[in-house]
Amino acid sequence: MTNDDIILANRLAEAAGEAIRPFFRARFDLETKADASPVTEADRAAEAAMRAIIEVERPTDGIIGEEYGREREDADRVWVLDPIDGTRAFIAGRPLFGTLIALVEDRQPVLGVIDQPIARDRWVGASGQLTMFNGVPVRSRACARLADAHLGSTSPALFAASDYDRFARVSAAAGDVLWGGDCHNYGLTASGHLDAVIESGLKLYDFAALIPVIEGAGGRMTDWQGRPLDANSAGDVIAAGDDRLIEQIVALLN
Amino acid sequence: MTNDDIILANRLAEAAGEAIRPFFRARFDLETKADASPVTEADRAAEAAMRAIIEVERPTDGIIGEEYGREREDADRVWVLDPIDGTRAFIAGRPLFGTLIALVEDRQPVLGVIDQPIARDRWVGASGQLTMFNGVPVRSRACARLADAHLGSTSPALFAASDYDRFARVSAAAGDVLWGGDCHNYGLTASGHLDAVIESGLKLYDFAALIPVIEGAGGRMTDWQGRPLDANSAGDVIAAGDDRLIEQIVALLN
Repeated sequence: MTNDDIILANRLAEAAGEAIRPFFRARFDLETKADASPVTEADRAAEAAMRAIIEVERPTDGIIGEEYGREREDADRVWVLDPIDGTRAFIAGRPLFGTLIALVEDRQPVLGVIDQPIARDRWVGASGQLTMFNGVPVRSRACARLADAHLGSTSPALFAASDYDRFARVSAAAGDVLWGGDCHNYGLTASGHLDAVIESGLKLYDFAALIPVIEGAGGRMTDWQGRPLDANSAGDVIAAGDDRLIEQIVALLN
Repeated sequence: MTNDDIILANRLAEAAGEAIRPFFRARFDLETKADASPVTEADRAAEAAMRAIIEVERPTDGIIGEEYGREREDADRVWVLDPIDGTRAFIAGRPLFGTLIALVEDRQPVLGVIDQPIARDRWVGASGQLTMFNGVPVRSRACARLADAHLGSTSPALFAASDYDRFARVSAAAGDVLWGGDCHNYGLTASGHLDAVIESGLKLYDFAALIPVIEGAGGRMTDWQGRPLDANSAGDVIAAGDDRLIEQIVALLN
């Protein structure tokens, strides 16, 4: 991963945002059941725009995207793309969904972007560097005790039933929970406005970009056993701004 | 309620936004437990700014505000103010909280503003007029069947336990639920991006401004029994973009 990769990742985020913005809050036919096509159209347009750039600029890199699948996925370097993380928010005109872009080398995410193209919030994390929020370095905040922690999580419905009970043990012990938010909550954790995010059932393209953002800000991401995440992880994630929270959260989850 | 009142309400929203913006995502001391003081400071600054304008421009009107209480509350006309609806979102740097401003005449809200001072989303509803979103008239959307409805609700924790079970019967029958959002969800319902919002335990200053916004867009607000809301209501609310949803929601809640 080079500085040119960071520049390229920013360019991918720009291209995705350009593709998505015309669809945001656009009127689609709602006399019938709201179908997902405008979302799909925005999703596809954004991912296609990013893939086209990668094909030209990094023709030997692999690509894994939510919409258009896998290409050269065994390459040493693989770009992992989620053009719109937070579909429900996007459909509802809520500016908290985001485009997720990761570069994975040897199964480790080394570069991650969380971009909110409406609110214009962009976090960029890269191994060995401080996470940047709109060009300014950010740090997560100290929070030693779960009782003081402000948690974020997108929806109770994203947990399997038994997982929600496990989460509920943590949330009962925590300061409070901010619901909704999708990938934006991880950015807010990197910036020190939230203390932890706990979710389950994420796909690689949902979490790969988050890891460099959180860890470059001084936080830590693990699975629900407290183990490091990599490209093989099952998608149960904890992101903590202060890694002293991880142990407390893992103890209550299990 | 006159056109001058609408102009004044917009001016109040501007003043609140000016007071709030400097506090948004400001760093406060987080070595210790995050205390609520920056929020309180923003809240108070915004409400004080609005009250100062009302005292000059409408000296005989009453005022009910979340922070500074009640003044001339038996006046024929009463301004009802919530400087920051969505405290958790504000603390977390999420731009979905909002300033709520209502004018109540004879216990009926006749004018309402939902203002998001960061995203710059403003809905203004006034009796007998179309709801305006950033100066453009908006309509809620048609949705005849609950199974097709996209619901919004801020947090499972805002329901009393038995109320959450009642809500869960509705959400299980609906298309899906977007969590988080606070007052912003009601604006999105007025604009036709969400179909209904269901919440309980709201205070007068939480819901008074919402009614003219929702109803001026063609929707309807009731309590959980399907009865019209007024200044005496207990704060269990349904806002629907299409009033055919009300009966279906009430049936499942009860």
